[in-house]
Amino acid sequence: MIAEPIEELVRLLARLPGLGPRSARRAVLALLKRPDTLLAPLAAALERCAREVRRCSLCGNLDLCDPCSICRDPNRDAGQILVVEGVEDLWAMERTGSFKGRYHVLGGTLSAIDAVGPEELGVDRLVRRVAAHPNSEVILALSATVAGQTTAHYLARRLKGTGAKVTRLGYGLPVGGELNYLDEGTLKAAFEARQPLS
Amino acid sequence: MIAEPIEELVRLLARLPGLGPRSARRAVLALLKRPDTLLAPLAAALERCAREVRRCSLCGNLDLCDPCSICRDPNRDAGQILVVEGVEDLWAMERTGSFKGRYHVLGGTLSAIDAVGPEELGVDRLVRRVAAHPNSEVILALSATVAGQTTAHYLARRLKGTGAKVTRLGYGLPVGGELNYLDEGTLKAAFEARQPLS
Repeated sequence: MIAEPIEELVRLLARLPGLGPRSARRAVLALLKRPDTLLAPLAAALERCAREVRRCSLCGNLDLCDPCSICRDPNRDAGQILVVEGVEDLWAMERTGSFKGRYHVLGGTLSAIDAVGPEELGVDRLVRRVAAHPNSEVILALSATVAGQTTAHYLARRLKGTGAKVTRLGYGLPVGGELNYLDEGTLKAAFEARQPLS
Repeated sequence: MIAEPIEELVRLLARLPGLGPRSARRAVLALLKRPDTLLAPLAAALERCAREVRRCSLCGNLDLCDPCSICRDPNRDAGQILVVEGVEDLWAMERTGSFKGRYHVLGGTLSAIDAVGPEELGVDRLVRRVAAHPNSEVILALSATVAGQTTAHYLARRLKGTGAKVTRLGYGLPVGGELNYLDEGTLKAAFEARQPLS
């Protein structure tokens, strides 16, 4: 009854987080109502991202170049590495404008159930980067959830041998909350009040 | 900070109904995490819809052919025309499986503020289709809102000269609700209990 390419579009959009079948149908109609100003540009943007976006082999960020523009930037302190769970957290941190170091994107947290171990999170790569830089600081900006804090403690232990100062976000991070949902002011405050991990 | 094509994708997705900047960012990351199984297929589906989907010049439905497959279907009664506000309502009606006639998609309701008049809703086209068919029935399946019911009364007046029986959805339609949000059972019941418009 509904034309097959429209059905296919609804099915694909319904797989995005926050969209279900009903909202996907509404989105498809909004797209079909604006073929030139919304549908075609979106198709082109997706196609361009599919072709051009790659993951940074140093830090795990998503960018057009590898190493990413943050890892290439000589003005950003290679001796300060902020560890985040995902690229959305890196984006949130960048929006605060208060961090001038570099990142390590874990791509998740340690999880026995989902078979996510240190290898999946690139922990060896992080340890090597930190060890290569004397007097460096590693800021563990992980969510204040059990999984986030477990991962933070594991990382702190792994980083002990490097001589780096290991801190975590402090003041302002609400217990049980996810980094990604913080407002920028709170995130900035938490960054500035970071504390050494005991 | 965020690569330009990713920003562009976030901006475009944030324009879809039900998505804001935050959920658009989450959607983009979900897409970038699945480049081959989600991002590329979505780009292809959009591109295909942009190329192939057209509006039916008879009824206003969206389909790959014009006239659309419902208007072409000889098994669907051309003497029964169900008038809906939008294609989402046509889809909702088709999902009930209880209607075997054809449609007229208004594309909105009469609105002085938005400068939507009978011309924008294709009312002349509807009247001609109805007049061309003796003993036809027009079912006004509009939302039970002020705008929907104002439009329904206007249509009933315009259709008077055609000799067609004009009905409206009856039993089950909650007052103040929009057709598009009805569950299929209620919509089916409303269709079966349709009543002549006094």
